[in-house]
Amino acid sequence: QCDLSGWWENELGSRMHTSTVDSQGDFSGEYHSAASSAQKPIEPSPLVGSQHFDKDGQCTFGFTINWKFSNSTAVFVSQCFAGAGREEVLQTTWLLREKVNSLPSNWKATR
Amino acid sequence: QCDLSGWWENELGSRMHTSTVDSQGDFSGEYHSAASSAQKPIEPSPLVGSQHFDKDGQCTFGFTINWKFSNSTAVFVSQCFAGAGREEVLQTTWLLREKVNSLPSNWKATR
Amino acid sequence: QCDLSGWWENELGSRMHTSTVDSQGDFSGEYHSAASSAQKPIEPSPLVGSQHFDKDGQCTFGFTINWKFSNSTAVFVSQCFAGAGREEVLQTTWLLREKVNSLPSNWKATR
Amino acid sequence: QCDLSGWWENELGSRMHTSTVDSQGDFSGEYHSAASSAQKPIEPSPLVGSQHFDKDGQCTFGFTINWKFSNSTAVFVSQCFAGAGREEVLQTTWLLREKVNSLPSNWKATR
Repeated sequence: QCDLSGWWENELGSRMHTSTVDSQGDFSGEYHSAASSAQKPIEPSPLVGSQHFDKDGQCTFGFTINWKFSNSTAVFVSQCFAGAGREEVLQTTWLLREKVNSLPSNWKATR
Repeated sequence: QCDLSGWWENELGSRMHTSTVDSQGDFSGEYHSAASSAQKPIEPSPLVGSQHFDKDGQCTFGFTINWKFSNSTAVFVSQCFAGAGREEVLQTTWLLREKVNSLPSNWKATR
Repeated sequence: QCDLSGWWENELGSRMHTSTVDSQGDFSGEYHSAASSAQKPIEPSPLVGSQHFDKDGQCTFGFTINWKFSNSTAVFVSQCFAGAGREEVLQTTWLLREKVNSLPSNWKATR
Repeated sequence: QCDLSGWWENELGSRMHTSTVDSQGDFSGEYHSAASSAQKPIEPSPLVGSQHFDKDGQCTFGFTINWKFSNSTAVFVSQCFAGAGREEVLQTTWLLREKVNSLPSNWKATR
C-alpha cells in the first residue's frame, strides 16, 4: 500500500517531504528542487495537495508548489505504484507556470 | 487586483467556488464540473491550492481537485489577469490523471 | 467536410498556409507566427504534416514546424470540426521544444 | 553528431524507423508501437517530420504519426543528445489526439 508521507526523490535529485495525510486526503509538505528556470537561488518551497484513498493503495494524487524564490507555481499529478516486494514508485507529470506580464504573452507561460 | 475568493466559471460551464485565501496563500474550495470522462454522475469535488501574493495582483496559483465520483485527480495551474476597468480573467492549464492498473499503462494515464 | 488546404488563422493572429493534401494524407505548408519566445525576428517557417481521411470529414491531423529563426521545433495536433452551415474550426494543442545544451536541462525544454 | 536515420527504440518497446533526412531536414518513416489506447490491433504506421541541422548535431526535431488502426494522430517533439563516447539519446515529449464527435468533447481529446 502506498503511503505518501515521508521523503521522496526524483531522478533529477529533487526531493520532497510530505506530512501525514489527513482524513480528507489533504496533505502539505516541502519541496527541495534541484532544478530551476529562475535566476535566483533555489529555496525549499511549501506544497499542498490531495490524494485518493483506494483499496489497492495505488492512489492518484496531486499537489501545488508555491515557489518561494520566483513568481511561478507548479502543479504535479501522480499515481503511486506499489507491488509485492517492490519499492513504491511515483509516476508524475507536471506543469510549471511562469508569471507573464499580460494576456498576449499567456501562450508561453506554461511548460 | 485579483482576488481568487468567490465563484469562477469557465467556457465549458464548469464552476468553482474558492474560499478566502489564508496568509500563506493557501485556499480550499469546491469544483462543480460540467464535463467528465468517467461513467458515473458528476459530483461537486473538493479542491486545495496555493497562490502567490504579487504587488500587481496578477498572481500565479495552482490547485488540486480530488474527484469524488472517480479515482482520478486533476491539477490546474493558472494566472489571474486584471486590468483597468476590465473583469478579472483566469488563464488556466490542466492535467487530468486517471488511475491505471499497472506501470506499463502509465503512458496513457494523463491528459 | 473539412479541407485543410488553404489559409488558417488562430486567435493570436498567427497564420498558416497548407498545400494540397496528397493521397497518403501528407501535406506541407508555411507558418507565419505572430508570437515568439526567441529574440530574433520571426520568419515564415516550413511545416510538414499528415492527416486522416474520415468519412465525416472531421479528421485528426498533426504537423511539425521547423522554425527558421531559432533552434526550436514545434508540433501541433488538431481536429477539424465542420457543421451544417458553420465555418470549419480547428481545435489545436501544441508543444514547443527549445534546444537545450545538455541532458540535465532537458526537463525545461518543452512548453 | 546525431543522425536520425535508422532504428530507434523507446523504454516501452516501441520502435521507429527513420529514412534518410533530405536537405530541407524533412524525413519520413514508420512507427511500430508497443502500446495503444485503441481496441483494434496495432499496425505499423507512417510518420513524417522535420529536423534542424545544428553545428553541434544536437538538433531538435518533430514528427507526426498517422495511426493506421485508429482515427488518432500523435505528434512527437524531441532533441537528440550525443556525447563523447556515448550512445545517442532522444528526449521526447508527445501528444496524442483521439477523434471526438463534437466540439463539447474537445477538452478530453488530447493526452
